[in-house]
Amino acid sequence: MKVCISGVSGRMGKEVKNLLMNNQFVGGISRQSKADEIEKLVKNSDVVIDFSSTENIMKIISLCAKYKTPVVCGTTGFTEPDFVKFKSYSKDTPILYASNFSIGIYQMAQLLKSTESILEDFDISIIDRHHNKKKDSPSGTTLFLASQLRKNPQIASLRIGGIPGDHVCYFTSDSEEICISHRSFNRTVFASGAIKCAKWIIDQVPGFYQMSDYVNKKSV
Amino acid sequence: MKVCISGVSGRMGKEVKNLLMNNQFVGGISRQSKADEIEKLVKNSDVVIDFSSTENIMKIISLCAKYKTPVVCGTTGFTEPDFVKFKSYSKDTPILYASNFSIGIYQMAQLLKSTESILEDFDISIIDRHHNKKKDSPSGTTLFLASQLRKNPQIASLRIGGIPGDHVCYFTSDSEEICISHRSFNRTVFASGAIKCAKWIIDQVPGFYQMSDYVNKKSV
Amino acid sequence: MKVCISGVSGRMGKEVKNLLMNNQFVGGISRQSKADEIEKLVKNSDVVIDFSSTENIMKIISLCAKYKTPVVCGTTGFTEPDFVKFKSYSKDTPILYASNFSIGIYQMAQLLKSTESILEDFDISIIDRHHNKKKDSPSGTTLFLASQLRKNPQIASLRIGGIPGDHVCYFTSDSEEICISHRSFNRTVFASGAIKCAKWIIDQVPGFYQMSDYVNKKSV
Amino acid sequence: MKVCISGVSGRMGKEVKNLLMNNQFVGGISRQSKADEIEKLVKNSDVVIDFSSTENIMKIISLCAKYKTPVVCGTTGFTEPDFVKFKSYSKDTPILYASNFSIGIYQMAQLLKSTESILEDFDISIIDRHHNKKKDSPSGTTLFLASQLRKNPQIASLRIGGIPGDHVCYFTSDSEEICISHRSFNRTVFASGAIKCAKWIIDQVPGFYQMSDYVNKKSV
Repeated sequence: MKVCISGVSGRMGKEVKNLLMNNQFVGGISRQSKADEIEKLVKNSDVVIDFSSTENIMKIISLCAKYKTPVVCGTTGFTEPDFVKFKSYSKDTPILYASNFSIGIYQMAQLLKSTESILEDFDISIIDRHHNKKKDSPSGTTLFLASQLRKNPQIASLRIGGIPGDHVCYFTSDSEEICISHRSFNRTVFASGAIKCAKWIIDQVPGFYQMSDYVNKKSV
Repeated sequence: MKVCISGVSGRMGKEVKNLLMNNQFVGGISRQSKADEIEKLVKNSDVVIDFSSTENIMKIISLCAKYKTPVVCGTTGFTEPDFVKFKSYSKDTPILYASNFSIGIYQMAQLLKSTESILEDFDISIIDRHHNKKKDSPSGTTLFLASQLRKNPQIASLRIGGIPGDHVCYFTSDSEEICISHRSFNRTVFASGAIKCAKWIIDQVPGFYQMSDYVNKKSV
Repeated sequence: MKVCISGVSGRMGKEVKNLLMNNQFVGGISRQSKADEIEKLVKNSDVVIDFSSTENIMKIISLCAKYKTPVVCGTTGFTEPDFVKFKSYSKDTPILYASNFSIGIYQMAQLLKSTESILEDFDISIIDRHHNKKKDSPSGTTLFLASQLRKNPQIASLRIGGIPGDHVCYFTSDSEEICISHRSFNRTVFASGAIKCAKWIIDQVPGFYQMSDYVNKKSV
Repeated sequence: MKVCISGVSGRMGKEVKNLLMNNQFVGGISRQSKADEIEKLVKNSDVVIDFSSTENIMKIISLCAKYKTPVVCGTTGFTEPDFVKFKSYSKDTPILYASNFSIGIYQMAQLLKSTESILEDFDISIIDRHHNKKKDSPSGTTLFLASQLRKNPQIASLRIGGIPGDHVCYFTSDSEEICISHRSFNRTVFASGAIKCAKWIIDQVPGFYQMSDYVNKKSV
């Protein structure tokens, strides 16, 4: 697999580069990259992994469509019209978009849905614990997990020390409790998830994919 | 629902009786019960919940078949031929058999299977923690959970204090971990599970059912 | 040890009675008890364990002082003047007063104090999880634990299912975390704690004692 | 504080160097260092932090004694006679020796001792969970924690995924449980602990110190 990294000098771009084998990394795109360089890279790569900015990806996505190069994109902050346009290129090339590339979190989401459907009358609660530099509370991931449930869970969030990211969901009845939790040991989990998605998407037909597609199809 | 309890003076029989509404409990069968009493009870009940002995249930099961009274049975220790004979009555009346009536544990088993199929390259481990009077180690439930997995998990067991029963399963990679755990607050969880199964089985056609049938069908 | 239970027909009084050996239980005081009965009981007991009402204990405490019978009291809701008067009897007989008789929670409080003094620059947070019938949130015990700390901890509380009572305190830095937690398996822990206090107080000199006295002196 | 790092090219030496401010790092000693360089460094430093080899530290320690430069040493594998000799230099300069520089683990050890003395009749168990590259099982830290207890705890160890290091100790009775646990988010915790010890030891009088001295004195 030949990978081009868009946003190669950002925090996530660097993490992805570190995790790739030397012979997998074809080249990186940053603000300084010239148009002809970019076009050559997109043309010669099996897949583009993008953690850049919305302006940047909007420029690159048409090239990906032109050369049928699949895209794994984790850039956030699209305007609504930009996102619609971004998605439209998926008729020509496979695009996987996600705001969180941890495989474990998506599996956790599946487990919550399955558990709620069986343990119908159990109370549900979610606790997230993150480092004290994190500004949003509850975390985006907690909101994503809650959005997978029919019932509104009780939610609590702590911002303490240097915790990379803990999410715990309890299903509790009068006499028993099932707890489903996820813990990141470090932040490479997200880079690693994006690379796994890249390996998968190069074999897909054009279309717009989410993490749930990757997680569910894999198990078919 | 009219319930007859077989093994009504045993520990589990008492728990079940305590949890039933007064108008749900039709009568109990114990060693002292006379044949005509038993026959009358089985005939007039919507369901028999049995936590007795194998001798006892082998006597009663033919009556249940005769009167098409569904059976929920948690008695353990059948000989192979007895169990085959016991099962054969399920052609006439629905029988649900289980060695553990905690709904949560069966849901946990489903979650483990689902998670293993997605998180293929994660290490798996199970810890059970039970009170120090428990003799088997690992617990039967740990062995049941492990039997649901393709890989052999690492297993550890502690026998300490008065813990009613904790089971924890970890799926661990280099950078993240999903943990699925179950905790019983008390032992009524098993009686309560048997009653829920009783409510379900009275609407089933004759056949031999397990907890997984109850758990899975409920979600259809 | 001969024990008289004041408030013997209440929930806690019954729990205490259940846990005492037959030959330890001398008699119970309830609203129906007559004055001469009460006086006789207090006179003939080694210790009074009281979980009644403030009116009731205010009547009994003078008898305890008169006969030098030690008192373990878990009744809550005293008015300020009543509590001052109640305490004044401790010049004649040892009185141990507590709103929570779990030995573990008091040990947990000691551990928090000790840990805060060492891990000075760690963030502190407390989570309590209790059954959904519990009305106060955070729990009184969480407030008690927080009151033992110099820093204000982040606090989160969940009210779910039938959890008897979980308290977790985290000390978290950028690179490590110490967690100190307490879990009740059932509510007998409080009755059992009161009985242990009773055994201890019968050897004390007159004075007003708290759980911390019991916990700390025991370790001398 | 001016720090010289002995074993600067090893894994721990690098971690320590990364954590020091530029103006704190005076220089590093490795196998290639020349005798006069080493002597100059030891003479001009406020403290030597050593994670090297026993041969190396045996050469350096006499210089530290000569120039009264305090030493924080985390090198393992001393022979008995070497260790006796190593310790003997502490009559001239303060030496702090430890096999684990996580402040949290030493605080955990204190908590275990304190808890055992109060919760005398509780069952004790320790679980450690580490990455699957770790060869020793149970971990050295588990053995150290167990050595702080009078009772023999039940011990269980799991070697799974990339867990940097989790240690959990349970004190369990029939009705309640206190759990004291420690979790490392990453391996810098040990480098960071060594630097904190270095800051402390430069104010101490000559003598042989352990982590417990650092942890306990700090709280005076």
